[in-house]
Amino acid sequence: MAPKDHTANICPSTLDVTRGSLPGSKKTYVGDLKVPMREISLENGEAFTVYDTSGIYTDETAEIDIMRGLPKMRRQWIVERGDVEEIEGREVKAIDNGYKQGKAQHQPFPVTPQKPLRAKPGQNVSQMHYAKKGIITPEMEYIAIRENQARAEIHAKAAAGESFGAAIPPFITPEFVRDEVARGRAVIPNNINHPESEPMIIGRNFLVKINANIGNSAVTSSIGEEVDKMVWAIRWGADTVMDLSTGTDIHDTREWIIRNSPVPIGTVPLYQALEKVGGIAEDLTWEIYRDTLIEQAEQGVDYFTIHAGVRLPYIRLTQDRVCGIVSRGGSIMAKWMMHHHRESFLYTHFEEICEIMKAYDVCFSLGDGLRPGAVADANDAAQFAELETLGELTKIAWKHDIQTFIEGPGHVPMHLIKENMDKQLETCGEAPFYTLGPLTTDIAPGYDHITSGIGAAMIGWFGTAMLCYVTPKEHLGLPNRDDVKVGVITYKIAAHAADLAKGHPGAQRRDDALSKARFEFRWNDQFNLGLDPDTARAMHDETLPAEGAKHAHFCSMCGPKFCSMKISQEVREYSAAEDKKDKAA
Amino acid sequence: MAPKDHTANICPSTLDVTRGSLPGSKKTYVGDLKVPMREISLENGEAFTVYDTSGIYTDETAEIDIMRGLPKMRRQWIVERGDVEEIEGREVKAIDNGYKQGKAQHQPFPVTPQKPLRAKPGQNVSQMHYAKKGIITPEMEYIAIRENQARAEIHAKAAAGESFGAAIPPFITPEFVRDEVARGRAVIPNNINHPESEPMIIGRNFLVKINANIGNSAVTSSIGEEVDKMVWAIRWGADTVMDLSTGTDIHDTREWIIRNSPVPIGTVPLYQALEKVGGIAEDLTWEIYRDTLIEQAEQGVDYFTIHAGVRLPYIRLTQDRVCGIVSRGGSIMAKWMMHHHRESFLYTHFEEICEIMKAYDVCFSLGDGLRPGAVADANDAAQFAELETLGELTKIAWKHDIQTFIEGPGHVPMHLIKENMDKQLETCGEAPFYTLGPLTTDIAPGYDHITSGIGAAMIGWFGTAMLCYVTPKEHLGLPNRDDVKVGVITYKIAAHAADLAKGHPGAQRRDDALSKARFEFRWNDQFNLGLDPDTARAMHDETLPAEGAKHAHFCSMCGPKFCSMKISQEVREYSAAEDKKDKAA
Repeated sequence: MAPKDHTANICPSTLDVTRGSLPGSKKTYVGDLKVPMREISLENGEAFTVYDTSGIYTDETAEIDIMRGLPKMRRQWIVERGDVEEIEGREVKAIDNGYKQGKAQHQPFPVTPQKPLRAKPGQNVSQMHYAKKGIITPEMEYIAIRENQARAEIHAKAAAGESFGAAIPPFITPEFVRDEVARGRAVIPNNINHPESEPMIIGRNFLVKINANIGNSAVTSSIGEEVDKMVWAIRWGADTVMDLSTGTDIHDTREWIIRNSPVPIGTVPLYQALEKVGGIAEDLTWEIYRDTLIEQAEQGVDYFTIHAGVRLPYIRLTQDRVCGIVSRGGSIMAKWMMHHHRESFLYTHFEEICEIMKAYDVCFSLGDGLRPGAVADANDAAQFAELETLGELTKIAWKHDIQTFIEGPGHVPMHLIKENMDKQLETCGEAPFYTLGPLTTDIAPGYDHITSGIGAAMIGWFGTAMLCYVTPKEHLGLPNRDDVKVGVITYKIAAHAADLAKGHPGAQRRDDALSKARFEFRWNDQFNLGLDPDTARAMHDETLPAEGAKHAHFCSMCGPKFCSMKISQEVREYSAAEDKKDKAA
Repeated sequence: MAPKDHTANICPSTLDVTRGSLPGSKKTYVGDLKVPMREISLENGEAFTVYDTSGIYTDETAEIDIMRGLPKMRRQWIVERGDVEEIEGREVKAIDNGYKQGKAQHQPFPVTPQKPLRAKPGQNVSQMHYAKKGIITPEMEYIAIRENQARAEIHAKAAAGESFGAAIPPFITPEFVRDEVARGRAVIPNNINHPESEPMIIGRNFLVKINANIGNSAVTSSIGEEVDKMVWAIRWGADTVMDLSTGTDIHDTREWIIRNSPVPIGTVPLYQALEKVGGIAEDLTWEIYRDTLIEQAEQGVDYFTIHAGVRLPYIRLTQDRVCGIVSRGGSIMAKWMMHHHRESFLYTHFEEICEIMKAYDVCFSLGDGLRPGAVADANDAAQFAELETLGELTKIAWKHDIQTFIEGPGHVPMHLIKENMDKQLETCGEAPFYTLGPLTTDIAPGYDHITSGIGAAMIGWFGTAMLCYVTPKEHLGLPNRDDVKVGVITYKIAAHAADLAKGHPGAQRRDDALSKARFEFRWNDQFNLGLDPDTARAMHDETLPAEGAKHAHFCSMCGPKFCSMKISQEVREYSAAEDKKDKAA
């Protein structure tokens, strides 16, 4: 196949992204580390501060240039530690973008990459390594401020949840962050070559996080669309983004995304390695895979999904499944192993992979290649055999001080979710769990954000640290911009419902602020305190568009005569009067 | 206000409703009782039968005339029992439609109502009464067939769930239906004046049901739209429909809906009573309310939401709530009680209400007027005080052999849902629970179908028998047709996820059939076995519209080279070969 002209896909004009603040909101920066938050101004004169993943794209005062990328905020911290060096780095080849003959016709990211950083020989630059040595990094300090969301004090109702053994403190300190990372109960995904990232943490004693998957495929979408999807996903609250591109232009798509991303970027390096061998799984080699890891580590990928737990003997455990192996990575490795009748090179070379990870501080996201793809296959022998191996690999990774989290399913009916969570905590020594949903039924293609949002909220409550979103297009096609937004909002709901149920201190503050606004008919505040002010406002305005209705003591649901909220306010006056009588008596 | 000309609202041309079968489906009728089912034809030559709420609107061979209403299928059964008589009935007055002066300008349902039926003096025509006497009615036989969904045998994986003490049998018999109704653990809402209804059952040992709310308000929507919404809601799976109309034309709107509805219709009679007194809660009287109950019972309303548990001493328990009283019925009664300083007439006249209920077989849906409207208010003293009273009233209703179920919240964070369910089962002697959601967080206006779908799935699993849907417009406005569909599908997901988790025999058959189709790349079957074939197909076709892609062994998510499903099929061949080797060795 002759290389296509891809210039059109990535010319500046198609690289426009959504900018500007959310309604009623402004960007604030807290402390010397300038930790970004979003402050929502309320009509009653109060302000409410929320966690903010959106980067400078929502800062009205920021200078944004997609063609140059974000400021390299963390570069100084990294260099000052004195344990890294600039290296020449691996040369980018045509094949990295999927082109075989000569130089490809693609247009790379316009700024020539800086020389990559790597740990000096013998050094380990992972946050876990520092944490174990008792060092509190600026990243950890930043995270402590961020997780507290500008809370001055602990919310009274905070302790009411059921945390299933999590140990959420009333207030997050830098030392707590360090301790959790040292124990392996939390990870800070931030490759030293992604200094544009705003540090964040994934662990069950912190706010539940969500990931949004983007990426083009051989069938559809362009680089410009993917950069826009990344910015769009973080606008609505995605804490990390995975670039799951396949097909051509993988290297360049990723470069554009990383250079413009304030959130950690994850990938499945196997996808690119497979492209390099023309899509023939059996032609994969450890050398090609290893080279791909280095390529991506030098670019700044923050975590790698590595399906090292799919072992040769487990393949046959899937044969009677309703849906076999549904993980792409898992099935690629299964095919390779079947063809060669050999153990997976991801498993046999695991310690070599560790050496790469610690030189750049890339996190392991140990992939669940045998996750169930149908409720019939949930919690079966294949899935749990792999989980045991992931537990074993976690211990090896930790021996190398490499930050590690574990991927989870998939399709799991509600009554099997707790068992899955408990088994992960036990098997993997409380390493953070990162699950896709799970989908609680198979029967609703087109609505799998909802079938999975149910499972995600539950497993988040039970202890999952990060929820990988599922969009309405799951099983049907690649998500577009609208699907990305619906997926992100659905998962923000699941994550927040989980925080609430766990009794996360401060989680209920936002519910209370919004409900109070609702009760007091502050319609604009109700919209703006919600996860999606634009949609809430648009829905309200469908029937009552007049600006006066934003202060009306009714809505179109009941009309002016019937409003229960209005009557409730009269109840207060009545009760106050009765109280007075009681006291007088 | 002068009466408006409402003719335009209900002229035949605006009363068009959606007809025709769902994709790949045809209507079948099982047994002598002609129990309707939907049979989905698959491309592999198999057929799959599912529960069907859609009435004759999806029967390609049926004659449908909205202007005449549905055939009165149950009339013969009712009359043959020999315990009812035709009565003159209450005369319809202008005030019933909200008009004060003279005859209103509205256009009633074109067919003059048949004379209403009522129990002969001293008789009780409730299904519970028959059940307690050991009588298996045709309604019960019909339900047994319907609940089994044409299953010939028990599904092997059926018993795997966790039912929390429910007693779901492997196969539903008419005797089991009778016994559950006699014990009060299930209800069959079918007023003798709604002979158009297809019998269905609500109880925790049966399939979890869902309700869709429709109804106009003073601000928006017409009769035609509401009839269309009812037909639309049952097309997608609503098991019952509540007409929550307020404003004018309440009587006529309801007549149009009931005469055309194959599913039970519920109402909140207090809404109409309030209209009759010009919206002034304190002007309500027992006499006006009683007259409204009779009016609606004669029309054929199958269940009444009655907020008889909101007692005078409980009002003050709500004063410190974040959101006070959010139930319209609850707040109306609170206002009445505060004004008169008297106990609620719904409570003091409860036994008189029972006399009306049993003369027509109207079910009690005991309303939760003090349900929490914010997560901060969940499971509080006010809510549980009312629940205790609902338990007390259930016992009184059962003394009269009146079918009774209990309404539940509302806004409840995940960790408080189980406590709420358990308390309801204990307090109300296992009378069916019927909950609105619950919403698991307050922070997502515009997405409350999802915040509540999470809670609905969980409480359905724990034992709730019917889930009242919440649409995306909750808190913002009255749902339109699209919102109704999204609400229904979301709640079908929640109900089915609950059935699966409870281990309902046969529930997993549909998941397995769909997943098998998915695994075998039968795209059309995957769409048609889903809850919403139209949306699934449209999403798939956004990127791969060609008809050939419906049999392609890939989709746009991964493209042709990457498909894990394809590789999984190779795993089967490999495993089979390995098995052979093992045997040979």
